[in-house]
Amino acid sequence: MDRLRLRLELEDLFAAYAACLDDGELERWPEFFTDDCRYEIIPRENFERRLPLAVLRCESKGMLIDRVAALRRSSVYAPRALRHLVSGVRIVGIEGGVVCAHANYAVLQTLSDEHTTIFNAGRYLDRVVRSDGVLKLAERLCVYDSVLVPGSLVYPI
Amino acid sequence: MDRLRLRLELEDLFAAYAACLDDGELERWPEFFTDDCRYEIIPRENFERRLPLAVLRCESKGMLIDRVAALRRSSVYAPRALRHLVSGVRIVGIEGGVVCAHANYAVLQTLSDEHTTIFNAGRYLDRVVRSDGVLKLAERLCVYDSVLVPGSLVYPI
Amino acid sequence: MDRLRLRLELEDLFAAYAACLDDGELERWPEFFTDDCRYEIIPRENFERRLPLAVLRCESKGMLIDRVAALRRSSVYAPRALRHLVSGVRIVGIEGGVVCAHANYAVLQTLSDEHTTIFNAGRYLDRVVRSDGVLKLAERLCVYDSVLVPGSLVYPI
Repeated sequence: MDRLRLRLELEDLFAAYAACLDDGELERWPEFFTDDCRYEIIPRENFERRLPLAVLRCESKGMLIDRVAALRRSSVYAPRALRHLVSGVRIVGIEGGVVCAHANYAVLQTLSDEHTTIFNAGRYLDRVVRSDGVLKLAERLCVYDSVLVPGSLVYPI
Repeated sequence: MDRLRLRLELEDLFAAYAACLDDGELERWPEFFTDDCRYEIIPRENFERRLPLAVLRCESKGMLIDRVAALRRSSVYAPRALRHLVSGVRIVGIEGGVVCAHANYAVLQTLSDEHTTIFNAGRYLDRVVRSDGVLKLAERLCVYDSVLVPGSLVYPI
Repeated sequence: MDRLRLRLELEDLFAAYAACLDDGELERWPEFFTDDCRYEIIPRENFERRLPLAVLRCESKGMLIDRVAALRRSSVYAPRALRHLVSGVRIVGIEGGVVCAHANYAVLQTLSDEHTTIFNAGRYLDRVVRSDGVLKLAERLCVYDSVLVPGSLVYPI
């Protein structure tokens, strides 16, 4: 049961993470991570060829906070709604207090006066730790299926 | 564990609700609600600006039943299949026996001889109560991401 | 609780199944089934009219293995990524050790240099048994919403 319960807790974490981004509450987003976290958005092809070319790479919570500040300053985005769908959360390993988990995601996008389309889809490859009783992301790699790099992909996924 | 267990029960409720609509069993749809329920379909923009303009508003189970009867009479729809994807079910509060829960949804649509597209996506904002041991929706607000109002959106979501 | 726990186990099975196909590890795919399994991909219209016309029908694990071998030989596909989203897993009955379960699925597709689209969506209608402690598919019917038959639909879903 412990493993099933842990999966339920991961799903709670991922649901809160998705709601944070969908609600546009970017300032709360770094709080889902540990201080020394790693966060990357990587096209699938680069990931599979082990090319170190990420579209976005942050190597600490401080860098996540900087990223949010930069996004708030630039604000070049057309008004749009994002909507995360997360499916197939799986624990693939537990070692020394670190939970390795995978999940599929799709982010839908709705621009003003347009129909809803798929903005980005791929896999989350995560390392999760418990800190003061709360699950935090020590690492989240967003490996997305497209090789197209939408200009706006620097927004967190 | 109680909160995780409750989330599992909510997911069961939402899965049965989605299957009811996807199977076209509209007559069973009002049974997911309490007698004095509230059901609304609202564009996100109106919801955020607190404009009271819903695309559909029902303020009792009787109104849901009337709505189904009206839909059956009109029957102007092209044959199509709907398919609900629900993700990120979250309990955001429990007060006095009322569970406040949020979830993301996407409804896919497949018209005859056409490819599958995204019909509507958004959030469910729910108030759920237990009545005779069974969870029922006391309120479901479907806040959808588009500002476009598809003619057929009067169909329950 | 037993029924909720069983649903969690089904979700684990479905998540592993989806990851297997999304990772392109076709050779592992038959292992999700019992030896005397049944696997079909059927357009919704045929299923509802009880027409015995499936796009793909396999009536044993051996046939699944043959299918994988044939797919590996032909290899006519353009490079593409598939991504499963599974939602609304429901136990609809348990009889004599056989669990009947339904779920909604969508398979997203990303071709090289193109945007992500919906490849196929529909329902899984499953019969699941426990064999040596492990859940296996005795039957999986993939009833998809489109009447269009994409050439590449002979790929497992």
